[in-house]
Amino acid sequence: MPIYQAPTRDTRFVINEMLRLESYAALPGFENASADMVDVLVEECGKFCAEVLAPLNLSGDQEGCTRHADGTVTTPQGFKQAHAQFREAGWGTLSSPEEFGGQGLPHVLGFMAEEFISSANQAWGMYPGLTNGAVSAILAKASPELQAKYLPRMIANEWLGTMNLTEPHCGTDLGLIRTRAVPNADGSYAISGTKIFISAGDHDLTENIIHLVLAKTPDAPDSVKGISLFIVPKVLVNDDGSLGARNAVSCGSLEHKMGIHANATAVMNYDGATGWMVGEENKGLAAMFIMMNAARLGVGIQGLSQAEAAYQNAVSYCADRRQGRALTGPVDPAEKADQLFVHPDIRRMLMDAKAFTEGMRALCLWGALQVDLSHKAASDEERQAADDVISLLTPVIKGYGTDKGFDTCVQMQQCFGGHGYIEEWGMSQFVRDARITQIYEGANGVQAMDLVGRKLAQNGGRAVQAFFAMVDAECAAARSVAGLEGLAGQVEKACGELKAATMWLMQNGMMNPNNAGAGAHHYMHIMGIVSLGLMWLRMGAVATDALAAGTADKAFYEAKLVTARYFGERFTPDAGALRRKLEAGSEAMMALPVEAFARG
Amino acid sequence: MPIYQAPTRDTRFVINEMLRLESYAALPGFENASADMVDVLVEECGKFCAEVLAPLNLSGDQEGCTRHADGTVTTPQGFKQAHAQFREAGWGTLSSPEEFGGQGLPHVLGFMAEEFISSANQAWGMYPGLTNGAVSAILAKASPELQAKYLPRMIANEWLGTMNLTEPHCGTDLGLIRTRAVPNADGSYAISGTKIFISAGDHDLTENIIHLVLAKTPDAPDSVKGISLFIVPKVLVNDDGSLGARNAVSCGSLEHKMGIHANATAVMNYDGATGWMVGEENKGLAAMFIMMNAARLGVGIQGLSQAEAAYQNAVSYCADRRQGRALTGPVDPAEKADQLFVHPDIRRMLMDAKAFTEGMRALCLWGALQVDLSHKAASDEERQAADDVISLLTPVIKGYGTDKGFDTCVQMQQCFGGHGYIEEWGMSQFVRDARITQIYEGANGVQAMDLVGRKLAQNGGRAVQAFFAMVDAECAAARSVAGLEGLAGQVEKACGELKAATMWLMQNGMMNPNNAGAGAHHYMHIMGIVSLGLMWLRMGAVATDALAAGTADKAFYEAKLVTARYFGERFTPDAGALRRKLEAGSEAMMALPVEAFARG
Repeated sequence: MPIYQAPTRDTRFVINEMLRLESYAALPGFENASADMVDVLVEECGKFCAEVLAPLNLSGDQEGCTRHADGTVTTPQGFKQAHAQFREAGWGTLSSPEEFGGQGLPHVLGFMAEEFISSANQAWGMYPGLTNGAVSAILAKASPELQAKYLPRMIANEWLGTMNLTEPHCGTDLGLIRTRAVPNADGSYAISGTKIFISAGDHDLTENIIHLVLAKTPDAPDSVKGISLFIVPKVLVNDDGSLGARNAVSCGSLEHKMGIHANATAVMNYDGATGWMVGEENKGLAAMFIMMNAARLGVGIQGLSQAEAAYQNAVSYCADRRQGRALTGPVDPAEKADQLFVHPDIRRMLMDAKAFTEGMRALCLWGALQVDLSHKAASDEERQAADDVISLLTPVIKGYGTDKGFDTCVQMQQCFGGHGYIEEWGMSQFVRDARITQIYEGANGVQAMDLVGRKLAQNGGRAVQAFFAMVDAECAAARSVAGLEGLAGQVEKACGELKAATMWLMQNGMMNPNNAGAGAHHYMHIMGIVSLGLMWLRMGAVATDALAAGTADKAFYEAKLVTARYFGERFTPDAGALRRKLEAGSEAMMALPVEAFARG
Repeated sequence: MPIYQAPTRDTRFVINEMLRLESYAALPGFENASADMVDVLVEECGKFCAEVLAPLNLSGDQEGCTRHADGTVTTPQGFKQAHAQFREAGWGTLSSPEEFGGQGLPHVLGFMAEEFISSANQAWGMYPGLTNGAVSAILAKASPELQAKYLPRMIANEWLGTMNLTEPHCGTDLGLIRTRAVPNADGSYAISGTKIFISAGDHDLTENIIHLVLAKTPDAPDSVKGISLFIVPKVLVNDDGSLGARNAVSCGSLEHKMGIHANATAVMNYDGATGWMVGEENKGLAAMFIMMNAARLGVGIQGLSQAEAAYQNAVSYCADRRQGRALTGPVDPAEKADQLFVHPDIRRMLMDAKAFTEGMRALCLWGALQVDLSHKAASDEERQAADDVISLLTPVIKGYGTDKGFDTCVQMQQCFGGHGYIEEWGMSQFVRDARITQIYEGANGVQAMDLVGRKLAQNGGRAVQAFFAMVDAECAAARSVAGLEGLAGQVEKACGELKAATMWLMQNGMMNPNNAGAGAHHYMHIMGIVSLGLMWLRMGAVATDALAAGTADKAFYEAKLVTARYFGERFTPDAGALRRKLEAGSEAMMALPVEAFARG
């Protein structure tokens, strides 16, 4: 069976040493996030995920969910009990607002928990995970009455939530949705329509499920400007908070998917179900984006999560399995063969994975800190700056993080040779589960367009200029640190490619928007490389300081510096190639008529 | 249900126009390969695969194989009938020797058929496909008696074959095998041991199955120098050719795999089974490599095959599905949305797939011609040159072809958005099936080491120097062709990176073999890019000539030139990045102790 152990040492390194969370103690919510407290939370959360959730991952994949004739859905064995333990322990409420029963801790800790949960069991983690998205929309837009009715029990994970956007004929293009919301006399609405691909659409983990549903009121404009957002509970909630009648919403069927078998991906039928509007009429898209942005960061973390879990299993296999001899001569002459670890091509894959997962973990937790600072930093300027950078990087964390996360899972599966293809080893599941992260919450092509078509130009490019300045400063500082000069130069060069690509997009995207579209994917990947480079420079600086101070944990920091060097060598060269592709523009890409793609 | 139509127009273009197969008519076996005959064979074979094999692909994946209590295996519904039709039509015998009942046509046509078969149904195609590998070893090494007994019926696909190499504790490192072969008094051997991952290990398609098994005789050296190869039929064959008693070999279980569900991947138990030695004692490795090299080219074709099938489905979906508007303004204002085709990022993925599949098809068919010429060319020099180049490029066709083939399937699945993740659309199956091609017949890391550690240095680098000369000549010629200058420069640059990487490996691989191992993967990919570049230059030249001659099929040739340009823009830049990674060497890659990879 696959193994999983939470990477607590690395996580504590990022939170306490790189982000120095303690230094923000003056901000609300941070006062309880001392280094000692962080250590305890990280270790305990890691233990819960490894002991309770991870053992259900492979069995959940094999069993899947079952829909019964009455439309109710049963999750795999053990899922319901694990949810009860999870609620009891409060791992879902770390960074939820205290006002509604949350623990009010920084999002840094919430993201930490999301990573561990998703590594241990992505399909299980999606049940509470989607609730986070739903909660954020209700928090931002719903009336105090709706908030009071739903938030405390959703935040406590007593009720879980869903997000209902997609319909059979419309995914990304939400202007096409057909689900109708007709006003009732009492201020509620009658919701009718069919939604598809609804993760966690029905299940047996909780008594009630709170669906957030995009629909159109009768006179709404026929575009994205005519979408409103509604709360539609599976079971109606009486004014005293007790559960009332079953609402007219049900799961029509479950999809047969490539992965995340243990999460119920449902077709949801709304048949005049009673719903309540969240926020203003026809302003559903804005509310949806709040929900979506939270979810996108969560999906980026899932990319990291699957890569981390796959990496751990590959490391274990490559240490156990003996095959062939080192190119430089037998390492273990007493054995009939050496460990797989001796082979450079195996090392290449493992070092790629190590450099990606550690860099990505730093990026996600640093990103979480920006989310916190965007709300809680002392000055307007600091809040604005934090909001700018996390808005800019959200599509990068989602798109680049899941592209590389999936690739990493594939490479870790490759380390197993033929055994990687056999389901019982669990490597196939990591690949199959990771694959959805590139698709859902906005396919990665949509992320790239969000970055290039929207985020880059906002406020006259303020966010990207600030990002460049941040990277430049880090490179300049690292240039004078012995051992980091090489990486500093490589990241500086990659950032130079990013700046040039930005300039090219500004000049050529105006002239022909297809040029922006044609380069968006490449651009997102360059920015991903530079973002990880920024993190590796910071981790490298911390490691250098720790070693200079005579740390007792020398091996850990030395490994950080070697991995930083490897990152510079093996990740940064792609930035130049990506820029060349981007600068090729859209002409050849768009030149052929559709018929030219047909075979025959 | 997924669609498939054989790309017959493109195949005929490569065989008749690019390779000009007719021009070899003086060579034995080529006399029947006139352009007219090629057209008929390509069209008819394509029709068979599309009509008979493709409809069984998704159902085969869903049903899988069934092992019964007595160890026999049943293939999915329709597979046995399809095999009977296949035998009847003779699509498995195109390039087999006439001496044993084959049609004696060039391998170019055999490879053509392999591509179509595998695109239509990879799992089905592996039953006859593995037989080809087994046949090639028997042809090269077995005694005339064994050849006469087995070859005619294997070539006629009356009996199918398997290759038994892997054991539970040994995959790549064949020196570790434990299966024993004890001589019997009559010259046969008693074979005992367990083999795993045996594709097509048992099934109901044919009455008999001919297993080729690696085993060790009692006094054999304890290394790869002590391996012998044996024929072990499932059912013993009497001297008159009739079937005798059941041999002591049986399928112990079937593996649960990520993909190729319809192919029986068996654990095979040999319990004193009677076998006959193929070739000399302790020389099994050489015989195995003959079998393996044929199989490796076949697997490279599978990488192409899955990419092609996935591409066709993505093209169809992107024409049907309407979502969003073109960045340059509505293309179909009467519709509520434009086709997916209008979006540059969708085009990027489709053009990547078009450039890869067409380039790879040319490379595989050109490679097949080299196989033919290595046997049949008029002069020793020509035979040697052809053998050199196909030996050099076999690991590239297998390793680069399947890496890119898999990536292409993933990208084509991405075009479907959420629908790509749902099994009924078939895109998941293409990804899952393609995944094995990077692993079996020598994982791609092994291919890279075969290229860098063995093929490069053979005969003082004669093969790679000839390859450089071939690319240089093509670039020089294309430089003066209007419309091809750009591509010529890009391929020349990529080839320059390859030359520099070769030089670096020669200098630094000697000093420390880990430097060769660390760069092998990168090197293989650079050579893949340059090989496809060579093909695109040749295709571009043919298309230019056809247009100049006033062809009636203008759109086809114009699309070739646009795709050639796209290839140059989007594929060649990676060569430089790969070289930089290669030149980083093995120091950081190999620096960390195994413990530094552990989490906690």
